[in-house]
Amino acid sequence: LGEIVIAFDLFKNDSGSLVFMEGNREIPFVVKRVFYVYDVAKNARRAMHALKTTEQVIICLQGSCVCSIDNGSSREEIKLDNPRTGVHLRKGIWREIKDISPDCIILGLADREYDPNDYIRDYNEFLKFSKGETKPGD
Amino acid sequence: LGEIVIAFDLFKNDSGSLVFMEGNREIPFVVKRVFYVYDVAKNARRAMHALKTTEQVIICLQGSCVCSIDNGSSREEIKLDNPRTGVHLRKGIWREIKDISPDCIILGLADREYDPNDYIRDYNEFLKFSKGETKPGD
Repeated sequence: LGEIVIAFDLFKNDSGSLVFMEGNREIPFVVKRVFYVYDVAKNARRAMHALKTTEQVIICLQGSCVCSIDNGSSREEIKLDNPRTGVHLRKGIWREIKDISPDCIILGLADREYDPNDYIRDYNEFLKFSKGETKPGD
Repeated sequence: LGEIVIAFDLFKNDSGSLVFMEGNREIPFVVKRVFYVYDVAKNARRAMHALKTTEQVIICLQGSCVCSIDNGSSREEIKLDNPRTGVHLRKGIWREIKDISPDCIILGLADREYDPNDYIRDYNEFLKFSKGETKPGD
């Protein structure tokens, strides 16, 4: 699906572990928005939307989860279970986060500010969008 | 010391908790660098440096820690124990992170890329810097 798994360097010494990343370097865009998700309920799924134009990188800082990515014609699942791995979610992709462990903390970085109009929350609407039947801004 | 504690909104529903922030909005700068610290050893202190020109926001995503901030003439301690609170660390400030719980995860956001020359790792050198005896770039 063209998604990119990003491997971050780990700087570990006797006092602890550090991971860092910069926009337009490890992260393939300038970071405009940062978010994190935690205290996820058992069996809950998160995300369950597509973003028309926003790109994101998501990272599982603790625990584990599965990121399911769908471009409208095929679906791929990526297990995230360590803080040194990010997944680049390109624009126009439907994503679901599932099998989220109780201790899971998900960090997200996005290339633009929050815009509710950029979200597609209905899967059938996403399928139309992915077939080019709707355009960003519709 | 002019440090600002930032309170982020919490978006909590049956499926979990979400916190988000944007550059030049909740975060008082454009985010150029993101980092996180975890698996900190018992009794370890982190940071232990000043940054000549870099500004940061740090957030305790899980567990707790104490951020000690020093401008060269006075010192202040801020306990961080929840993911809805950030501390804005202005440039030219010495910072130490201590009393770090074993489960602590610290997220940091910075207004510029990593530059080793921006760090002052010797406290006496910092005191000279804070008195204006050295300039950024020295």
